[in-house]
Amino acid sequence: MTGDNSFITASKPSDGTVRASRPAAACNGHVTTHNGAGMAISPPSTAKPTYHMNGITNGTASKAAETRPFYQRVLALVEELELPCAVQHERDSRPPLLRFHQPSELAQLLPMQLGEPVASEDELLQLCRRAAELSVRTDDVRFRNQLFGGMDKYGLAGALLTECLNTSQYTYEVSPVFTLCEAELLAKVRRIIGWSSGDGIFAAGGSMSNQYALAMARYNRHPEVKTQGMFGAKPMVVFTSVDSHYSIMKAANWHGFGSDNVVQVGTDSLGRMRPDLLLEAVQRVLAEGREPLFVNATCGTTVLGAYDPVPAIADICQQYGLWLHVDACWGGAAMLSRRWRHLLTGIERADSVAWNPHKMLGAPQQCALIVTRHEGLMHHCNSAKATYLFQQDKFYDVSYDTGDKSIQCGRKVDAFKLWVMWKAHGDAGLERIIDTTFAASRFCAAEVARRPGFRPVLPSNDSQCANVSFWYVPEALRGQEETEEWWQRLDQVAPRIKEGMMRSGSLMVSYQPLPSKRFHNFFRLVFTGAPQPSEQDVTEALDEIARIAEGL
Amino acid sequence: MTGDNSFITASKPSDGTVRASRPAAACNGHVTTHNGAGMAISPPSTAKPTYHMNGITNGTASKAAETRPFYQRVLALVEELELPCAVQHERDSRPPLLRFHQPSELAQLLPMQLGEPVASEDELLQLCRRAAELSVRTDDVRFRNQLFGGMDKYGLAGALLTECLNTSQYTYEVSPVFTLCEAELLAKVRRIIGWSSGDGIFAAGGSMSNQYALAMARYNRHPEVKTQGMFGAKPMVVFTSVDSHYSIMKAANWHGFGSDNVVQVGTDSLGRMRPDLLLEAVQRVLAEGREPLFVNATCGTTVLGAYDPVPAIADICQQYGLWLHVDACWGGAAMLSRRWRHLLTGIERADSVAWNPHKMLGAPQQCALIVTRHEGLMHHCNSAKATYLFQQDKFYDVSYDTGDKSIQCGRKVDAFKLWVMWKAHGDAGLERIIDTTFAASRFCAAEVARRPGFRPVLPSNDSQCANVSFWYVPEALRGQEETEEWWQRLDQVAPRIKEGMMRSGSLMVSYQPLPSKRFHNFFRLVFTGAPQPSEQDVTEALDEIARIAEGL
Repeated sequence: MTGDNSFITASKPSDGTVRASRPAAACNGHVTTHNGAGMAISPPSTAKPTYHMNGITNGTASKAAETRPFYQRVLALVEELELPCAVQHERDSRPPLLRFHQPSELAQLLPMQLGEPVASEDELLQLCRRAAELSVRTDDVRFRNQLFGGMDKYGLAGALLTECLNTSQYTYEVSPVFTLCEAELLAKVRRIIGWSSGDGIFAAGGSMSNQYALAMARYNRHPEVKTQGMFGAKPMVVFTSVDSHYSIMKAANWHGFGSDNVVQVGTDSLGRMRPDLLLEAVQRVLAEGREPLFVNATCGTTVLGAYDPVPAIADICQQYGLWLHVDACWGGAAMLSRRWRHLLTGIERADSVAWNPHKMLGAPQQCALIVTRHEGLMHHCNSAKATYLFQQDKFYDVSYDTGDKSIQCGRKVDAFKLWVMWKAHGDAGLERIIDTTFAASRFCAAEVARRPGFRPVLPSNDSQCANVSFWYVPEALRGQEETEEWWQRLDQVAPRIKEGMMRSGSLMVSYQPLPSKRFHNFFRLVFTGAPQPSEQDVTEALDEIARIAEGL
Repeated sequence: MTGDNSFITASKPSDGTVRASRPAAACNGHVTTHNGAGMAISPPSTAKPTYHMNGITNGTASKAAETRPFYQRVLALVEELELPCAVQHERDSRPPLLRFHQPSELAQLLPMQLGEPVASEDELLQLCRRAAELSVRTDDVRFRNQLFGGMDKYGLAGALLTECLNTSQYTYEVSPVFTLCEAELLAKVRRIIGWSSGDGIFAAGGSMSNQYALAMARYNRHPEVKTQGMFGAKPMVVFTSVDSHYSIMKAANWHGFGSDNVVQVGTDSLGRMRPDLLLEAVQRVLAEGREPLFVNATCGTTVLGAYDPVPAIADICQQYGLWLHVDACWGGAAMLSRRWRHLLTGIERADSVAWNPHKMLGAPQQCALIVTRHEGLMHHCNSAKATYLFQQDKFYDVSYDTGDKSIQCGRKVDAFKLWVMWKAHGDAGLERIIDTTFAASRFCAAEVARRPGFRPVLPSNDSQCANVSFWYVPEALRGQEETEEWWQRLDQVAPRIKEGMMRSGSLMVSYQPLPSKRFHNFFRLVFTGAPQPSEQDVTEALDEIARIAEGL
């Protein structure tokens, strides 16, 4: 294979500019051969004209001089590589999910250093191609590694248009359309929750949403903290389950509560917060002279997918006057489904709710929101009244300048892509996405329960989010007494299977221990809405895990 | 004009899905007529087949059935509307910078409500077209309203590829390429600052970067705050200039310092922090029994573009053991220029530096970073050691899993677009962008100084960032005694000129008062690197301000 590999040994340009085009030194076909686990790499020092590696192409260099704007050439690359939403690949011809390289190898394949410019746009395009080919195909249904995955095709369209319109979501002046879209979406979500008024914002991810919630809770109880700070205040305490997301701890850190003032409440066998333990903890904190402030209930925990019992937690919050935040970043998507909505029963009693449409619903990253039923609070809590941005003598209603309730200043437009999705699918279409996703998870749980070697982590999956947790017990370990030593051996199985997946590029599923339950490493197979997973996708994933495990 | 206006009175589909295409009811040309300040709007209730408004098109509905993926149709729309980077418009044919509508009018033109799906993709495309046409053309050189503007064309390409690869920047596992790109960029910026080691992260905007700085400063001095919180601690104090960005105040709020523990230090006639006043303030705080902790020096203040004198501030920080943060979100771009680098003299003495390449450099929103010279500190400060994400038994070097130093969990990839830009332009090309931008601002300052009616706010612009601040004094107000009443009248001029700009879509320049200097409303004309402003752009902007003012 001859190839133009000049981007590895870039020639120095004389004038520092990128020339719009140059004659391609050589042209080679689009090689999609994938050599599986083989990682033979020709280091660039020996690369010369031949260049083979792991199915990565050197591209189809155009023979004609290129005059298109560079971004169009990159979009043509997106087409050629069949990146997200362009095509759902046939099973037999789909590219590997990833081409794993160790960091040092990767830096050889894609030279990172910055200083001299590339010699031409062709070379730059080659770098972009390489970057794309060396990235993980999160759009592939075999990517089951995170709580996000592929993108909704209408959401992608909205995201691309947003990129091209490059603006910031702080004033109506510079974001008129997106200001209205955001307001409409926040109102829609509040109505779905069951609130007739309130406020909210699109935040830079669910962790930031949880920070907003804590900030509001603190301000609501102690507005004087905004001026006086936390110094000298009675210690305020945050309650969250041991299985909740780590961002609650990070929020407590930044907000000056400290981890000692975060009470991690125990959970039941399905990973749900135990209200009896919450009540005990609240009473204990009171007895210690500290001040209970904030309870985080999780709807859809990260690992097990548990839904905390909101009604019982809300009762306690009501009794003790505590702020109830519901972290529904993952499991909140069930709100959109008449069938699964019951998992969130009681959510209307919350003071604030966080939900990430970029997770199960398949909105492009990032798309996360927090809503509160307290009108005006978010603004009072966070405002700084910058006179250069939020002038009060404008000629339009400045209540549409929503930026001062944000903790960001410039804020990327994350609402529009969801708005386009919602316009495209309607309530009913979004509901179908969620229902299909949940159905896939239930089918998977049933498969896990019946297949040899697969052992469910939970006694039942009926009330979980779209997470399926299991150990895979290789044949060599089956039928033995399950001593601590046996568990130690099993503990090493999942990381090795994971390595096998990533080296072959055939699947990505997360594994983790769960210290709160003393669970050794197990797999967490999660389902998201785009692309919609089929039964065949599920069975193939489980087959692949068994195949790799038995080949170790 | 006959048009398909079904998106205003959407017909209900029977099955809730978006049909891939449908026959267009009618086809109309691409109308680009712009009727200036005229805002005649046909409300949708009377819209029927005729539909006129303010140069907004009803699109070129395709007669043939559409089979392209929807995102491709949106990209074709980007082409058709000549959105960012596609074309630099000829002066005579460029579309208006914006088509201003009051919020209630806008909601008529682009129906916001969500629930029923659109009837077809054609209808959805129509909505996207309308959204684009009703948005502000931030790519237009006449958009001088914010510290960001158009996008670098290579940056846009990187941003679009990032969108299509939809991933999160927390682990090497799911972001191998982008992890290395981020590390390389952070190291590059640290080297430019003058540090041989350290750490950093791309944050969700400059306000978040400033929050990171405060978190690190607090942890560095008082690591016990991470466990115990701020309760019972001696009050810690933040110092920043009266002209610094409001995000310092917001950071102090979230971090539990309170605004009473933020000392706003006075500035000189150019808006630079006065080190003598800082020293006094530090000593006063000490005498009060509070603990000086953190000094924010701004390099490029938001309104006046002032560069605080870092060396003198660093001396004080060194003497009293204070964390020195440099908020160079706006003015940090001067680091890239040998000619303007002197404005940042002493920056290497900082503990942390924030810089937003999405401002002057023209990287697409958002692209913001913070670096620190303290290796490991960011990680220790923010880590929560989530076992489900940051497993320690992976088969690669887990030091490449950088997500635990972030306060976000999922984090949008903001590094790659800057990496593509840097590869394209090289150090020298980026330097030229900055030099051209500064040159435009200096030319503008000279024009402002010599033109009748324009009055510079500052005695000199020689050491400012690319900001030019001035009052416009209409002829009717010239040559009069400048009483308080006269100033009150002048105060109303800028808002009215701004309204005129926005209604005609001919220009956008920010105005604001500056309470710290008791300045009444004045204009702040700022320059950014994309598109590169020419002398003609500058003179036309100033001409337009005078034209509108004299026509009021």
